[in-house]
Amino acid sequence: MKHVGVAILGLGVVGSGTYEILRDHRQMYQKTQNVDIVVENVLELRKERAIALGISEDKIASSIDTICNNPNVDIVVEVMGGITFAKDFVLKALEAGKTVVTSNKELYCKFSHELEACAKMHNAGLYYEASCVGGVPVIRAQLDNLQGNKILSLLGIVNGTTNYILTKMSALGVSYQEVLKEAQSLGYAEANPTADVEGYDATYKLSILSSLSFGTKVPYTKIYREGITNINQKDISYGKQLGYVLKLLAIGKNNPEGIEVRVHPTFISSSHPLASVNDSYNAVFITGDAVEDVMLYGRGAGKLPTGSAIVGDIIYAATHEKINYSPFKNTMDADPNTNFIKNFSSAYYLRLSVKDEKGVLAKVTSIFSKYNISCEKLIQDINEDKTANLIIITHIAKEYDINQAVEEINKDEACDVEAVIRVN
Amino acid sequence: MKHVGVAILGLGVVGSGTYEILRDHRQMYQKTQNVDIVVENVLELRKERAIALGISEDKIASSIDTICNNPNVDIVVEVMGGITFAKDFVLKALEAGKTVVTSNKELYCKFSHELEACAKMHNAGLYYEASCVGGVPVIRAQLDNLQGNKILSLLGIVNGTTNYILTKMSALGVSYQEVLKEAQSLGYAEANPTADVEGYDATYKLSILSSLSFGTKVPYTKIYREGITNINQKDISYGKQLGYVLKLLAIGKNNPEGIEVRVHPTFISSSHPLASVNDSYNAVFITGDAVEDVMLYGRGAGKLPTGSAIVGDIIYAATHEKINYSPFKNTMDADPNTNFIKNFSSAYYLRLSVKDEKGVLAKVTSIFSKYNISCEKLIQDINEDKTANLIIITHIAKEYDINQAVEEINKDEACDVEAVIRVN
Repeated sequence: MKHVGVAILGLGVVGSGTYEILRDHRQMYQKTQNVDIVVENVLELRKERAIALGISEDKIASSIDTICNNPNVDIVVEVMGGITFAKDFVLKALEAGKTVVTSNKELYCKFSHELEACAKMHNAGLYYEASCVGGVPVIRAQLDNLQGNKILSLLGIVNGTTNYILTKMSALGVSYQEVLKEAQSLGYAEANPTADVEGYDATYKLSILSSLSFGTKVPYTKIYREGITNINQKDISYGKQLGYVLKLLAIGKNNPEGIEVRVHPTFISSSHPLASVNDSYNAVFITGDAVEDVMLYGRGAGKLPTGSAIVGDIIYAATHEKINYSPFKNTMDADPNTNFIKNFSSAYYLRLSVKDEKGVLAKVTSIFSKYNISCEKLIQDINEDKTANLIIITHIAKEYDINQAVEEINKDEACDVEAVIRVN
Repeated sequence: MKHVGVAILGLGVVGSGTYEILRDHRQMYQKTQNVDIVVENVLELRKERAIALGISEDKIASSIDTICNNPNVDIVVEVMGGITFAKDFVLKALEAGKTVVTSNKELYCKFSHELEACAKMHNAGLYYEASCVGGVPVIRAQLDNLQGNKILSLLGIVNGTTNYILTKMSALGVSYQEVLKEAQSLGYAEANPTADVEGYDATYKLSILSSLSFGTKVPYTKIYREGITNINQKDISYGKQLGYVLKLLAIGKNNPEGIEVRVHPTFISSSHPLASVNDSYNAVFITGDAVEDVMLYGRGAGKLPTGSAIVGDIIYAATHEKINYSPFKNTMDADPNTNFIKNFSSAYYLRLSVKDEKGVLAKVTSIFSKYNISCEKLIQDINEDKTANLIIITHIAKEYDINQAVEEINKDEACDVEAVIRVN
């Protein structure tokens, strides 16, 4: 039986989950996978965490070098998070010829070109299934299942915190601030929630996933990003009336004219499979030219679900000869031949506050037609104070045209565009 | 670049889809996978099919032996269906050391023990992702992603024809016979629909999937099976009122007391992710002890979606050294140590037609309590003809107890159990 020694860097939530899974399933893996996986080292400054897990003191390494020099360690699991130490440690492990398994989306997104070059040079494996959508196989599905397809698009709900907040806002009719507070007290949102609510986390994941999907490097810097902090309850509620659900979507499209990548709040039809992905669940909806639509759904984060992805990668690395490097040229920047579309096409939801007076609607629609925007649906909702809410769903329009039309409408005293939300 | 020669046995729907995908993506695979995949042979009696696809006559083999003797053929794709010739041809290919990729669920389900033994003996690969749920990676997810988990249960909508019929019956309020006819005229159901509507097809797939999930052979003969031919529109409609959707579910559970495997019409809560899997879409909902719930969703059949799975396997086989044989002892029969639970536990939906007279309800409930059955919900719906429909949802009860209670109730002239549907 093959012996595989593992070192875990960081015994936070995912690290301790990984340890527990490996410990509790050791005999199962001996039987089903014919491998004996043993945690040989952990790197964790707070020793009490290791001791609480029953890890003997001699396995607690004092530095990354101890681990790199330990001949019994074959695979290094990086679940520390952050990018400073994590990057340094991962590079050291790869240089020592250790295979690395990481859950660190920011690290992999920003530095995979460096890490992969180092891994190749030292013939080491580099696995990152746990970086996106917890235990749901969104990475490997692209590497090993859908690789016969040209992937046309991917739509993802890839951040649990924002999906939890939007689900609660929709279900309870309460404000963003109120739900955020509750999510923080439940531990579903960080004390500093910026990375999640402003869409950075989703951007890292979209970069990783769309590079795989489209077979070319999609740096996160190319991704249009908008968070959920300005979402107003009103819009969720008007959206519902119109048959839409609001989600923070990560969107990647491989159009004939180029690649379109964006993360922003998006209305989707309530009959779309992604519409019923609620709470902290995540899903990725992939369309390939052969497979058509595929959706992969599950827990996007958490101790054991993310640990499941880490352990899946450990076993894969232990039982497969071939190392899966990126099936595209993994450079820091995008291939100069790749065109990224900024002026993309979409339908739009607009909410305007207008004075309830003659001619206002005519003004709005004339500006729309100037910019080639046409309305598919329109609701006028008159308030008591002689103003009205005008809710418009446009046909497909160009992003730049919408921006210009909004700017022009806002110049008029009688009209104020209060919300612009893309509709997929 | 590695050259991979493929032979396709059968140019029906899936065979021609596979051919088209390989032909149209050849350059992409050279670039992304570093393999050149060429169809070297096809075996198809109706030569016009090959010619219509632009396959040159010299590639049309006259027998399986030609293919087995062709040194340029590395991988044989079996997409003929049926089990007589298919088994013979697959065994010959394996004996010749060719790797086999098949979409044939009946063949794999019934004979995988023989095929795998032959493959091992000749060091040949054997891949069957396309046998279950089209291009959705339900097989490989278990082999390469969720392998760190003990799988606790799987629930699958794995047959497109029956899901189409049930979706239409629910949406349009029409009878089984009416929808079946329409499905046949649209090509969604076969002229002889038995394999689908009686649940045999789902049984083959559940056998394959649950063997992988539970790490032990689950022969299809151990699976309780009930089709959808007796489903009455009334029950779909009462179920809706109670918040349920009716699906033909393939259910596998790995209980501490043993394995429970069954295919039958099942009510599931309308908020369950499987409830919105409609039309000919399929999905498998897997629960693991680490990953929690994962759902894999997509087209369960069709020319290109199934072709996508075939091509995924071809590329996997071409680019991985290791051959994935079953991670369990693949014998014809189940391991004698495996216990299969026949008297399983479930909630039940019952529809009774009763005479609208005093004491009838008391009789029914007293029989229920005799068999330890308690009601969770009860609707009484009085008809004009002095009869009433009694709709009961039970708490969890034992299958044998329900059967006995139903038998006893039916002995009473005043009561008639007209439908028994399990609730998950």
